[in-house]
Amino acid sequence: MGTEIREIQAALRRFADERDWGQFHTPKNLAISLSIEAAELLEHFQWLPDEQSRHLDDGQRERVAHELADVLLYLLLLADKLGIDPLEAARQKLAINATKYPADKARGSSRKYTEL
Amino acid sequence: MGTEIREIQAALRRFADERDWGQFHTPKNLAISLSIEAAELLEHFQWLPDEQSRHLDDGQRERVAHELADVLLYLLLLADKLGIDPLEAARQKLAINATKYPADKARGSSRKYTEL
Amino acid sequence: MGTEIREIQAALRRFADERDWGQFHTPKNLAISLSIEAAELLEHFQWLPDEQSRHLDDGQRERVAHELADVLLYLLLLADKLGIDPLEAARQKLAINATKYPADKARGSSRKYTEL
Amino acid sequence: MGTEIREIQAALRRFADERDWGQFHTPKNLAISLSIEAAELLEHFQWLPDEQSRHLDDGQRERVAHELADVLLYLLLLADKLGIDPLEAARQKLAINATKYPADKARGSSRKYTEL
Repeated sequence: MGTEIREIQAALRRFADERDWGQFHTPKNLAISLSIEAAELLEHFQWLPDEQSRHLDDGQRERVAHELADVLLYLLLLADKLGIDPLEAARQKLAINATKYPADKARGSSRKYTEL
Repeated sequence: MGTEIREIQAALRRFADERDWGQFHTPKNLAISLSIEAAELLEHFQWLPDEQSRHLDDGQRERVAHELADVLLYLLLLADKLGIDPLEAARQKLAINATKYPADKARGSSRKYTEL
Repeated sequence: MGTEIREIQAALRRFADERDWGQFHTPKNLAISLSIEAAELLEHFQWLPDEQSRHLDDGQRERVAHELADVLLYLLLLADKLGIDPLEAARQKLAINATKYPADKARGSSRKYTEL
Repeated sequence: MGTEIREIQAALRRFADERDWGQFHTPKNLAISLSIEAAELLEHFQWLPDEQSRHLDDGQRERVAHELADVLLYLLLLADKLGIDPLEAARQKLAINATKYPADKARGSSRKYTEL
């Protein structure tokens, strides 16, 4: 796992300890929080036409960056609690996806792998 | 941004290019996907009592790791599309949170910063 | 509240009682389930271009109807547990929204009421 | 479908027409909104211990009722757009669930029907 990620996780742990928040931070609650933050991120795109979402102005991009950060912070906190290495898990999942979605079958299609 | 993260983002870009998926990957659609994957992660905790969620068995932990990876992969893809450095954004947001939730006021409380 | 809704809620109560599921059906867990079902509903629109989502074929419409039903069932179960009349709450909220979004200010705009 | 529900749907249609919001109300966007509102409902339970969520005070219950109403309003609007009768769909889904989860097999278990 990257040093930077380990440093953010250490900072998150200190942050929670200083506020005595460990009691609230069960994996279940953190998964709830992650899901709520993902919805807040989505809210910024709610009424944007698809193509327009490719061209955010600076203000929008900064607000989106903050929400994306909230999702990532909860994800790193949850991974830390569960002893999951998030980058290693991402690499493994990407390898799994490559076998689920062979390039020649999946090209240009948005179908689920079960329907390819 | 960490080298490892940049490598995963490069792999995601290749993955999407080989499948001609760029057309589907508008930021709006990626934010939708991220939100759906967050709900799939939450599903593993849906009926677990809070305390029990601290003690997953190996099978549960592996399934959770895969879902967490899906969330992270969409997050990295979205960040890449929008030119957001996810780790830098996380560090900035953590600093903002520290001022929103001063340790002495927030200790032992799960209130929102607007109600501290 | 409509008779039909009360009948569905009574059926849901019997359904849960026969399976001894009351122990799992805390309002918190039901709110989680509702959120997960909403994401499953959204999944059907995930990769559809906006305009295309106005023209579902019969198969898509039936799958969407099933997911929409799941959301509604959890909503009615949660309302029942909390003693909330869902139709009365909907009428009240619609009246509140009418004052938040005056027709002349909100016309043709997708802005949040705080930014009108 | 209940008369009351049809009246709320008619009011929602008028509400949207008066504000010229039909352009934003594609089924895809409404499914996004429903999902976001479900997360806002969940937010009220985010840090509550499971059992405590059974005993909301009056203020909490009112806030929850408003969020539940928002979910229901988007659900009714989406159903209206797609020509789905929500109560009929709910009754059908409940019948399907009864065959997926036979009382004798599902009693006291929170397992998914695929694992019963």
